[in-house]
Amino acid sequence: MNDYQLFIIGAGPGGYNAALRAAQLGMKTAVAEYREAGGTCLNRGCVPTKTLLHASEVYRSTVRADEIGIHVDGVRADISKIFDYKRRVSETLSSGVENLLKNAKVPLLRGRARIVAPHTVEVCDAEGTKRYTADHILIATGSVPACPPIPGLTLPGVMTSDELLKGADHLYRSVVIIGGGVIGIEFATFYVNLGCDVTIIEGLDRLLPTLDRELGQNLAMSLKKQGAKLFLKSSVESVDQVEDGLAVHFDTKGEKNSVTGEAVLCAIGRRPYHEDLFAEDILPETDRHSLRVNERFETSVPGVFAVGDVSSRLQLAHEAAAQGIACVEMLCGVENGTNLEVVPSCIYCQPEIASVGLTEADAKAAGIPVKVGKCVMGGNARTLVADVGRCFMKIVAKADTGELLGAHLMCPNSTDMISEISSAIANHLTAQQMLCAIRPHPTFEEALSDALSDLCAKLER
Amino acid sequence: MNDYQLFIIGAGPGGYNAALRAAQLGMKTAVAEYREAGGTCLNRGCVPTKTLLHASEVYRSTVRADEIGIHVDGVRADISKIFDYKRRVSETLSSGVENLLKNAKVPLLRGRARIVAPHTVEVCDAEGTKRYTADHILIATGSVPACPPIPGLTLPGVMTSDELLKGADHLYRSVVIIGGGVIGIEFATFYVNLGCDVTIIEGLDRLLPTLDRELGQNLAMSLKKQGAKLFLKSSVESVDQVEDGLAVHFDTKGEKNSVTGEAVLCAIGRRPYHEDLFAEDILPETDRHSLRVNERFETSVPGVFAVGDVSSRLQLAHEAAAQGIACVEMLCGVENGTNLEVVPSCIYCQPEIASVGLTEADAKAAGIPVKVGKCVMGGNARTLVADVGRCFMKIVAKADTGELLGAHLMCPNSTDMISEISSAIANHLTAQQMLCAIRPHPTFEEALSDALSDLCAKLER
Repeated sequence: MNDYQLFIIGAGPGGYNAALRAAQLGMKTAVAEYREAGGTCLNRGCVPTKTLLHASEVYRSTVRADEIGIHVDGVRADISKIFDYKRRVSETLSSGVENLLKNAKVPLLRGRARIVAPHTVEVCDAEGTKRYTADHILIATGSVPACPPIPGLTLPGVMTSDELLKGADHLYRSVVIIGGGVIGIEFATFYVNLGCDVTIIEGLDRLLPTLDRELGQNLAMSLKKQGAKLFLKSSVESVDQVEDGLAVHFDTKGEKNSVTGEAVLCAIGRRPYHEDLFAEDILPETDRHSLRVNERFETSVPGVFAVGDVSSRLQLAHEAAAQGIACVEMLCGVENGTNLEVVPSCIYCQPEIASVGLTEADAKAAGIPVKVGKCVMGGNARTLVADVGRCFMKIVAKADTGELLGAHLMCPNSTDMISEISSAIANHLTAQQMLCAIRPHPTFEEALSDALSDLCAKLER
Repeated sequence: MNDYQLFIIGAGPGGYNAALRAAQLGMKTAVAEYREAGGTCLNRGCVPTKTLLHASEVYRSTVRADEIGIHVDGVRADISKIFDYKRRVSETLSSGVENLLKNAKVPLLRGRARIVAPHTVEVCDAEGTKRYTADHILIATGSVPACPPIPGLTLPGVMTSDELLKGADHLYRSVVIIGGGVIGIEFATFYVNLGCDVTIIEGLDRLLPTLDRELGQNLAMSLKKQGAKLFLKSSVESVDQVEDGLAVHFDTKGEKNSVTGEAVLCAIGRRPYHEDLFAEDILPETDRHSLRVNERFETSVPGVFAVGDVSSRLQLAHEAAAQGIACVEMLCGVENGTNLEVVPSCIYCQPEIASVGLTEADAKAAGIPVKVGKCVMGGNARTLVADVGRCFMKIVAKADTGELLGAHLMCPNSTDMISEISSAIANHLTAQQMLCAIRPHPTFEEALSDALSDLCAKLER
């Protein structure tokens, strides 16, 4: 008999949620982790950035408070205290995960795990190496920041999100961000809110290039309005140390350009993390860097499964968690009702962005005839009260049936509203069905009724 | 032929939404209004209170900012500037409504309207009285603050929400609020946020007595923590002018008590408003103060319909709007898909409350077996980041089928999340169906998955 029925490598959202569900279903389970419980999400990703963003938003609203009748003599961001606050939140949540595992009687084995043979894992810590056997091994090792081989990216002052989130003793007066994806944008928002000079350099033709075009375009306007500089269609060629900081040299459609910043953030994406995870004689198949899995989350190595960033395209904490639970339920023969195809994305910029399902462009590319309903929220009372700039909602539905296929929201609290559409998509509801609910006033969310009305009118034509 | 097909009295949410829909459907329509377009909602209700609350929340977060690393010196609320900001927002939205009507070619007749005979309305302004005939008359005159016949309530310094929203030249150092319903609670939140001494006197055994018990109880804890004083099961007997303000005398379960405040807000509810609206020979039937209507929104006077606060129990802007549109569609023979029975309520307290459908107690009273799923959000990342106190979500479903019947949320952004459940109720979805959507991390909204999981586990037993 093996030591465990399920051995999970990685205590991030994919791993710890799988462990809790496995324990609930009666599987003898262990989790190995060599860093903090909670993974990138709680310690170097989603949560720390949201904490920093919250502080920076309070700063920003304080600076702007005069126009709504709140006078402030002076405001100052204490960057080391902001990072203390970030650390407090991460530590609380990380020890919360440890407690959940403890209460579920799942041992959290501290050390680096390595799959040395089928059904066999070694965990190595300072005291030595222990060997465990398991019926099933689940890899949930996540991802790490990717760094392209550009000259100068190893200079001091050039950071990935990992280093940047460790904190600094002062607020950078200027930051150059390489990459206009989610990570780049959230850090840009943090620094812009605090009044720093921010430059974003993005290779493609817009910010957040994987999302609906209008989101990235509107975001660009919003960031520029707050003083950020943007360079699109630009590829970074090198970084140099110069007298007043770091000079980033880039090419914009054949034209050479450079900007200087006190710090440089390299935010070009994240790489699946499975270095040295497998013994050399049982290396698994990969798709580019990702572990290749089938629809049962199985890798090419028998008995070894993978979920989350290490094997997924989207690299989102909630997707990893859902996959981890689905994998465990599949192993236990328990029905899993989660629709793993409908995965929302959230970006905590200003205003917030949330997106799920198909864009109009996706639908066009897939040959699906769609109609798009839209509401620009200029007349929305709460948008006006909060004075947050241009906000809008776009809803995509099948042209023939009205079945919802996607939603693309840019407004405050959109990250808390997107699931209304995700649930509708997962349950195959139509625009007409979603319109039958009375939405409360005054909310940001009532704009959804306007977008749905617009959509239904187009569907009727 | 009559002058108009539809003559609407009142340009609040019930009236103006009905007018816009009527114009869209080709009805020749007019609206009479003697005050600002947008009604109580935009000018003396929902929107002004949300504007004041927004300013007070910025004040509050500024005062507390030090703990998250934002140092602020000398914070001061300029009450007249806060009210200027409130006025700006109301005026913008009110003129927005005027423009919508103008663009829809619906005349906005300025003056007091009176139904003098079936199908006949007189509108009286400074220049005289004009008479109009109409196929249908729709009353959307709303409500006004109610004031009970308690000695002293007419003293200067005792106000209803109408007077209080006119503004003041200074911030009251202390306010006594009579009534712990929605209006009382939102003003209490405004003044508590600004650091005033607030006392709430409520007749029943808890705040927000029409909602789920735990909401009012949690709110009481939150308000007390912020320094408010609460007296429940207490009936106000009189108000006196005293040296340092107004003394409110009340009886708490037989014990006499009194508190003194610089201002007193009487917030015991709102009364349907139809004073002098009908000529004496065609008075309509009423239910207590409300105009009695049938399921077609018809009053007892032929050809006269009513929607919104003047004839409804709930007195909510979004209900009035939905009824106005439904009434017009009914008159035009157009199918109306809105489920008018599922009406969410939102309270902008700290943390926000949103509620829809049945509570556990409602279900018990109606003899419906239910299960209740709950999530207390102590481990929710965004709740921890925002440090907003105890937050929770409760979901009520039919015990046999799992069909959702109600939701009771207390957490930031709950007013923007409640429609996810309203839509589900209106479409007869089950807890299991709602759980099939992946909810994004880190959001407040992901707690809904936990509440639904808890509910589904209880349903399986």
